[in-house]
Amino acid sequence: MARPVITFLSDFGPSAPAVCRGVMFGIAPDANVIDITHQVPRFSIRDGAASLVFALPHMPVGVHIAVVDPGVGTERLPLALKTARGDVLIGPDNGLLIEAAERLGGIVEARTIENRALMLPVVSSSFHGRDIFAPTAAHLAMGASFSSVGPTVPIDSLVRLPRPQPRVADDRLETQIVHVMTYGNVTFAGTPLDLTTAVGPLVDGRPLRLTFGATEGNEAGEVVEDTVWGLTFGSVPLGASVLMADSEGHLSLSDNQGDVAKRLGLAVDRPVTITAR
Amino acid sequence: MARPVITFLSDFGPSAPAVCRGVMFGIAPDANVIDITHQVPRFSIRDGAASLVFALPHMPVGVHIAVVDPGVGTERLPLALKTARGDVLIGPDNGLLIEAAERLGGIVEARTIENRALMLPVVSSSFHGRDIFAPTAAHLAMGASFSSVGPTVPIDSLVRLPRPQPRVADDRLETQIVHVMTYGNVTFAGTPLDLTTAVGPLVDGRPLRLTFGATEGNEAGEVVEDTVWGLTFGSVPLGASVLMADSEGHLSLSDNQGDVAKRLGLAVDRPVTITAR
Amino acid sequence: MARPVITFLSDFGPSAPAVCRGVMFGIAPDANVIDITHQVPRFSIRDGAASLVFALPHMPVGVHIAVVDPGVGTERLPLALKTARGDVLIGPDNGLLIEAAERLGGIVEARTIENRALMLPVVSSSFHGRDIFAPTAAHLAMGASFSSVGPTVPIDSLVRLPRPQPRVADDRLETQIVHVMTYGNVTFAGTPLDLTTAVGPLVDGRPLRLTFGATEGNEAGEVVEDTVWGLTFGSVPLGASVLMADSEGHLSLSDNQGDVAKRLGLAVDRPVTITAR
Repeated sequence: MARPVITFLSDFGPSAPAVCRGVMFGIAPDANVIDITHQVPRFSIRDGAASLVFALPHMPVGVHIAVVDPGVGTERLPLALKTARGDVLIGPDNGLLIEAAERLGGIVEARTIENRALMLPVVSSSFHGRDIFAPTAAHLAMGASFSSVGPTVPIDSLVRLPRPQPRVADDRLETQIVHVMTYGNVTFAGTPLDLTTAVGPLVDGRPLRLTFGATEGNEAGEVVEDTVWGLTFGSVPLGASVLMADSEGHLSLSDNQGDVAKRLGLAVDRPVTITAR
Repeated sequence: MARPVITFLSDFGPSAPAVCRGVMFGIAPDANVIDITHQVPRFSIRDGAASLVFALPHMPVGVHIAVVDPGVGTERLPLALKTARGDVLIGPDNGLLIEAAERLGGIVEARTIENRALMLPVVSSSFHGRDIFAPTAAHLAMGASFSSVGPTVPIDSLVRLPRPQPRVADDRLETQIVHVMTYGNVTFAGTPLDLTTAVGPLVDGRPLRLTFGATEGNEAGEVVEDTVWGLTFGSVPLGASVLMADSEGHLSLSDNQGDVAKRLGLAVDRPVTITAR
Repeated sequence: MARPVITFLSDFGPSAPAVCRGVMFGIAPDANVIDITHQVPRFSIRDGAASLVFALPHMPVGVHIAVVDPGVGTERLPLALKTARGDVLIGPDNGLLIEAAERLGGIVEARTIENRALMLPVVSSSFHGRDIFAPTAAHLAMGASFSSVGPTVPIDSLVRLPRPQPRVADDRLETQIVHVMTYGNVTFAGTPLDLTTAVGPLVDGRPLRLTFGATEGNEAGEVVEDTVWGLTFGSVPLGASVLMADSEGHLSLSDNQGDVAKRLGLAVDRPVTITAR
């Protein structure tokens, strides 16, 4: 029989995750605990959510803990979500889990975690990852029923993050940065199909222009980047930028062996308009 | 039967720990090797000891290797400590292991590691983690007897770190910084009970003053931080500081979603006086 | 029966490796996936190769994936190498795998990975680690035959990295930096035997001079470091440098509890001449 799978993502940095792993192995000694990352930018729910969306569809069915939680110690609820694929997602009710759960077939049931028998004997106000989420996840991995964690909550009452959508305008795609990946690759809301609808067929090497809007706190104002459509990083010279579909099918701007986010000063939420040139 | 547990902490950084894991899995293929952290500040025995104290009480009973060792290649002894809980701690005789061992019920027997049959065939002078500690730990995990590692040493002859104690004075608690956590939370020697004895009952929102003493090499001299007592980070506005009990029950100063150590320029050993205001 | 071993090295940084682990555990749920490191400097094939040489000889026999690949999306081939020890190395044909394979007894057969049945259903152009290397490695760990991955390629047609060799001249050893380790220890091509041949017997404390040549882009020109031969870091005072054999038997310059590469501004490929003084 396969080991039960528990995946684990947080913004805890290097040391605290091990404490949670210890708690889990104390309850579920044969679990296969797979770290997704613990280097989510501190308190960035959106970056954590994007990493979950990137990773969970490739993980085996299991229990998935995610903790990025500026509100620990406040009134936000600890949450368990059952997905159509059979997974359980565990984490705070702050939007972190929703989009990933939808990639796993959608949420079929949501419950708040209230069962003290599934937690550590003493629950601190500042380390719910160790005291609530990790032990509850381990008990679920050992066979505790989903319904045992606590009462149901209506799925449409869950906290959700805003989801930027691209706008296909006349001869242009108006969108925004939704994620800055490790190494500075920048992901936009929208797909090659959206861009094709806006500007016509995309062929390797087609010249395109990206105009990043001025944003509050950005003195430099608009930034214009002339780039090309490409199928791979290798389509362009070293250091040049290329617009392509990333491994998830989203529009993505990269510098070949460089860091385009750093070079152009880009960050999440920045609006961008993509046009032909 | 559960996999034997081996936990592993070091200041090795990203790459060298894998070599030790390889050695361990070569000897104990079914071990559950749990990394605590390998990002202990280089050669900081005290930070390593604090991370062990934080993590080991939550780990399953097992063999625990810890290597933070400015003295590799000198005459300090490789050590194995048996605890009352049933664990074995493996590491250098430089104070790193002691406090964590005491949290696991206390040291019941100490031995130096001298049995070459439990080490790699060739022992280098600079990588005892790979050549001595990892293979010895793996053999213990596979059932080698504790007494086989080498001769006993008197427990009271082990090297120990100084342990700062708070001083409850008239209307003030005099203590010092014992640990700077990831993200800049600062831990002091002493508990809320110590502080209550000094300044009276602690209620949520009670104003307090922390005066950090001038230290050698710190030109700025005294630093005064006016803060409040709180039950959680959420008790105070974003960016404001709060004095609370951390998840271990120690006094701890944090900025809500900030880095108070960086903001105030604080480091381990800095003396601090806590008073009412 | 022992779990099949898969080791994993990349320059992916913190988050992407988990996606590959998820893919592997989906195919090989009981695999023991051992991370070597994912912090290889981005696109540095040579640093990745050095880390493999350091780690793989200590790993159990298994499947070893390594991905440091500036050429993803170009015409370079995905490769599988069978070693005399019984391992399979998986990665790009860019020199990354060769020296480590030779440390495992040498390459007995090389094949390109072409079997789509061993890959993910959709292969992206930018994430071969997830789509080709990880699933192929997991299928091999589950018992797929080496010959099933694809057609053989001649071993002498594989891309290889240049291998610097020391030159024993009259009263001097002329060599170069081949690796900068974590914490700034610097490894040179050559062994203590090479140096003995050049300058005579090496005894603890023997004075030596290292002259680092001027290099393109290095305005400071030559750098001279007077050091001593030592058996351990502890042979010299805190902060002083020492030339010694590292744990692999190579000549290595270190500062005792310091970072000599940073202090002297050293990087890989820099030529150095070692003489008596």
